Amino acid sequence: MQLYGMAMSGNCWKVAQILRLTGHDVAWIETDTATGATQTPAFLALNPNGKVPVLRLNDGTILTESNAILLHFAEGTAWLPPPSLARTRVHEWLFFEQYTHEPAIAVARNLISWRREAHLHTERLAQCATQGAKALTIMERRLSQADWLVGTTPTIADLALFAYTHRADEAGFSLHPYPGVQAWIDRITALPGITLLPRPA
Amino acid sequence: MQLYGMAMSGNCWKVAQILRLTGHDVAWIETDTATGATQTPAFLALNPNGKVPVLRLNDGTILTESNAILLHFAEGTAWLPPPSLARTRVHEWLFFEQYTHEPAIAVARNLISWRREAHLHTERLAQCATQGAKALTIMERRLSQADWLVGTTPTIADLALFAYTHRADEAGFSLHPYPGVQAWIDRITALPGITLLPRPA
Repeated sequence: MQLYGMAMSGNCWKVAQILRLTGHDVAWIETDTATGATQTPAFLALNPNGKVPVLRLNDGTILTESNAILLHFAEGTAWLPPPSLARTRVHEWLFFEQYTHEPAIAVARNLISWRREAHLHTERLAQCATQGAKALTIMERRLSQADWLVGTTPTIADLALFAYTHRADEAGFSLHPYPGVQAWIDRITALPGITLLPRPA
Repeated sequence: MQLYGMAMSGNCWKVAQILRLTGHDVAWIETDTATGATQTPAFLALNPNGKVPVLRLNDGTILTESNAILLHFAEGTAWLPPPSLARTRVHEWLFFEQYTHEPAIAVARNLISWRREAHLHTERLAQCATQGAKALTIMERRLSQADWLVGTTPTIADLALFAYTHRADEAGFSLHPYPGVQAWIDRITALPGITLLPRPA
């Protein structure tokens, strides 16, 4: 398998992580969105949405959308409960991650710590700060009472939310007001096979 | 069951639609985000994210996130293929809908045709126009060659994307450049049990 991804991207991290956790080998092809590598004709033929991650399976099948790839490889493993209310709760967190959490925390992280253009995006970053705090508060409501987002063992809901939450400091968020979230980050970090996103140089 | 929803919302339409198609009765509780009804303490106790749709099952269980609710009720029906590449394709379209399509087309529709505040949001609407055209182009790539987004029968991927695409004119998009999308809209509209979103008064 080949994974087109950007090393700093939490969405790409999710894919590499679930592959590692489920025993799949993959070759990483670094694909930097900032240099236009996802907008070339060759890349757009792989994914017309012009985004990473893109995963090419050994039979040539192309998969996109990080959380869809999490679901694909987690099916039949302990990372995804069978169809049930528990699976629906995983789905709820996955959509929450992509609609509410990622557009605030991942976007702010990119602008502040990777592009270093915070001064150019004051208004947008103010919106990210508000929405990101809401997202963390919603996570804290669960994680102040439970070890994992769903049920009593880690699932891909935890992996999906961990991706950008464990680097929320780079997005301008302190986790001090969210002790349940911080304890959960420590819990995930201690799991076998978990890696962390790199820090900016 | 009780569904807290806003009549003009495609996300809420999805939930009412899958319930109808799978033979469930639901009482609709109109909940207007524009008047703050989703930010009251009582509503936030149901959904701390302060958003509709919120579905209360007969046993009191609360479900949120429209596409998670689609998956919940489609499980075991013809609206969702069993675990397979086809199911993963459905997941890809569901995340595409929430991350790429809805934030452009649903947001533009709301600002232009429901709030009638287009003049206050020129820059944001320009971004919506670009991103929405990209989303429709990606749909056209598939629908110029196939009747349905996944496989050979309608799935919840079609329902999820239909929600705002069939009212894309209210978001400032003509479907003339997308004849495959238009034919697909006509195809879904003709299915038994499909309703359409209301038009603004």
